[in-house]
Formats: sequence, structure tokens, C-alpha cells
Amino acid sequence: MTDTHPFDEAIQLDTVGADTRRGRTHPEWANMVGPFGGITAAAMLRAVETHPERIGEPLALTVNYAAPIADGDFDLTLRAARTNRTNQHWIVELSQNGEVKTTATAIYAVRRESWADTESRPPSAPAPEQVPAVDPGLVRWTGLYDMRFVEGAMPGKDGDPSPSSTTTLWARDGAGRPIDYPALAALCDIFYPRVFLRRGGFIPSGTISLTTYFHADRHQLDALDNDFVLATAHANRFSGGYSDQSAQVWSRDGGLLATTHQIVYFKG
Amino acid sequence: MTDTHPFDEAIQLDTVGADTRRGRTHPEWANMVGPFGGITAAAMLRAVETHPERIGEPLALTVNYAAPIADGDFDLTLRAARTNRTNQHWIVELSQNGEVKTTATAIYAVRRESWADTESRPPSAPAPEQVPAVDPGLVRWTGLYDMRFVEGAMPGKDGDPSPSSTTTLWARDGAGRPIDYPALAALCDIFYPRVFLRRGGFIPSGTISLTTYFHADRHQLDALDNDFVLATAHANRFSGGYSDQSAQVWSRDGGLLATTHQIVYFKG
Repeated sequence: MTDTHPFDEAIQLDTVGADTRRGRTHPEWANMVGPFGGITAAAMLRAVETHPERIGEPLALTVNYAAPIADGDFDLTLRAARTNRTNQHWIVELSQNGEVKTTATAIYAVRRESWADTESRPPSAPAPEQVPAVDPGLVRWTGLYDMRFVEGAMPGKDGDPSPSSTTTLWARDGAGRPIDYPALAALCDIFYPRVFLRRGGFIPSGTISLTTYFHADRHQLDALDNDFVLATAHANRFSGGYSDQSAQVWSRDGGLLATTHQIVYFKG
Repeated sequence: MTDTHPFDEAIQLDTVGADTRRGRTHPEWANMVGPFGGITAAAMLRAVETHPERIGEPLALTVNYAAPIADGDFDLTLRAARTNRTNQHWIVELSQNGEVKTTATAIYAVRRESWADTESRPPSAPAPEQVPAVDPGLVRWTGLYDMRFVEGAMPGKDGDPSPSSTTTLWARDGAGRPIDYPALAALCDIFYPRVFLRRGGFIPSGTISLTTYFHADRHQLDALDNDFVLATAHANRFSGGYSDQSAQVWSRDGGLLATTHQIVYFKG
């Protein structure tokens, strides 16, 4: 792993105190306003990974996007609110000039042998090699992924409304960086807003809170290397200027890597 | 609403400082270990409701169950990490004797007129009046609800494994208390662990983190009064001693009140 890949550059953190890390926004990860939410989630998870008191692997991450992150440096403060024998509860805050921009809670846990079953099934999709790569454009960070839409590609200007909010796509890092937990955290936010699809065009909108449950253990992630994952998302309800999204990220061989949910505001 | 109902007693908080509230566990809400997770979620939401700086209504709540809450008093400390024009980001911590037992983030928001659609559909179910009330027992708090299982009732001792983790039930407060946001937060945790159903019996398990998205506005909640809601839950993957759960809570007339997700540990 080199530091020259944009993903590693964007989550590179300096230790400026026992419980403080400093990062900086990266121009290639720019979203409509501030950075891509997925790269912020990845940086917050990375901050916990760098802490010497951390135990286990990521199990759950909730990131609350409280205010736009301005271009430049940001500070991450982290605290293990509670450490148990097999799990640990972190509170992380991202601030700029003393203003809180993002808050998060992260649960790290030790995985052990147990009864296991994947009850959900991946959506049916042709192999990624049979689907053309498309950059939805609109924002800069999408160019860093290889995205291949199987269903529900982003509508263009004056597109038609769709009765379904479902998008399914194959996605991988465009430069072939292997998938680790921060990369998986970012992939969980790869979907454009569901309201675009339903309304058939661009609607001002943004994620307010994102929760991800990591099902993959480190062995399963290592086996992925830099392969495509199959990501699928849908919304349940739009009302009052807000909507939810539920999504899943699958490996090519049918492993459910993560389930992830978010609440989104929209104007229109 | 009287303070003599167990739900109101359990979420009654005393103001002991500008940003501190004191509550106490209630014997009728006892779970296997500590109180029912739903009543703890309700108390944390209630704490924000009591804060004079609070704006809007609940939009998202994540509660992390870090350690068992002992019988007796607990303190809730709360802080608005960020207040915007139309939303507010809270961090809440529950502690006993200086030890953190539960952490939460809550997002309050102002709802406004927007395009609206409910894309999900409720599960089909007979009217609650046609389904017998059953108390699953095992823990004390279930006796405070009127539960009517349509699918996936709790297996008894030496029950059969089920290929599906889906449970659907009608539920309402047994004493007819109307549904407000704290009550809806509690209802989102009404399901027994999905692993019981898949394995056909009792398995030591517990919620680690619970996230709820509130879709209902206050008007929709008021219209419910104390009617039954239709609650449905399923798991996606069990592995490494953990599983997720995704659930929905519907009104009788097909309104999607909340979508809610959790990650659960289990032994076995």
C-alpha cells in the first residue's frame, strides 16, 4: 500500500495528541458541498484504527454529518467511552477551528466462531466484466471508482421519474486499492441520492446520518483484494423533506460484506 | 397522560443540571440483564426533549448499549454538538457512578412540505382483533405490551429451527398509553433476538447498537393515539457471533412510522 493513492492520501492522519488526529480534505474526493461522505466515514474509522487502545475489528459505525467540512485541515478527537472484554465503544468528533462538523460512534469487536448463515440473497446481476463502466459525473469523487450500473443508473437532466428507488451497481476502486474496513465504509456511501431516481433528475440533497454494520471479518476482506463488490440500495419512505436508504454490499461470490442505512434530506 | 403508567414512570427524568438529567430503572421494564433496550432508548430521547435548546422533532437516533445498566439511578448528560437552522445533532451519555453504560447520538430536525411517497409496503396481516394476544414471557417487560404475532412468534424450549428470521406482530401499549416519539423509539426494539427464531430456542444475545429513523411527524403520531402498530423484523446475516436486524413499524392504515436497524451479539 502506497501513500500515493488518493484514498490513502485522503485518510492519512497525523497524531497531534494521544486522542487527537489531524487530517485534511483532498480535492479529488470533493462532493457537491465538502468531501464525499464516504471518505469522511473512512477517515473517522481510520482514526480509531490508529489508536493504541483499540481492540478488535469494526462492527458498527454511525456517522452524523452535522455541517459541511471546509477545504483544509480537520481535527479528529476520539475517546473510548467503554472498553469491554470483546467490544469497545468509541465517540469520535471531527472539528475545524473548534466547530464540530461531524460526529460518530464506532463499535469495535472481537469476532469468534459461531453458528453462521446469510439469509439475504444478492440481487441478480451479470458479471461486472459484462457491464459498461460509467462515471455519473456531477461530482468529482465518482471518478475515483469504477462503477458499473446494473439497475437504476443516475438519471440525466430532465430524466424520467422512476417508480423504483433501487440502484444496483458493481463498484471498485479505480486504482485497484485493496478493500479494507475504511474502504468498505466508504463504499457503503457510494450511492447517489435515491430521490434523484424517483424524481428523474438532480434534487439538492445530502446524507445526515449513516450507519454501517460490518459483517465481513478481516479474512473475508483480504480475500477480496481489489475485486468489484455488488452494491444495492433502496429507499423506504420520502416525507417531510427527508428519506431513508437501506443498502447492502456483496462480494462477487455471494458474501454479504456490510449492511448500511442512512437518512437523507432533500429539497423539492 | 398520567405519571402512574409504567412507561411514563420509566422515562421520568429529573433535571439535576443544565445538561444533566437523572432517571432510574423501573422493575417492570426488566430484561434478561438490565432494562429493556427500548426503554433506555426512550429515556435518552426524552432527555433531549426536556432540553430548552432542542429544536424540531426526532429524525434519527442511534443508541449504543455499552454495558448493562444496574438497578437504580442513572445520569444522562447531553450536549448539542451542532445546531443548524433546521437540524440539531445531540450526543447523550448514560452513566452510573461515573461509568458509561450507554451512548447515543440523536438528530432532531424540522420537517417541511416536500414531495412524498412510501415505496415500501407493509406485510400482509389480519386485523389485530383477529389475532390472539400472547406474552412471550422470558423477560418481564413484554407483559407491558399487548403483542399479537402474525408470523414468527418466539419459539419455546426445544423449538424447531426456522429457515426465516422474520417476525411480524401487532403491538400496543398494554395500558393504552398514546404513542409519542419515546414510545415509538421503544416499539422499535420490541422484537426478541432473530437468532432465537433461526435456532429454535433461547440463545444468549443482546443488542449492541440500535439505529432508528423516525418517518412519522407529530401529526401522524397524534392520529395513532394508542392503536396497534404492525412491526416486522428480519436479519440479513449471522456470523462471527453477531447478526443484524432490519425492521419497520407501520400504522394500521399503511403509514410507515419508522425504519430501524440493529446489530446484536449472540453466543452459540
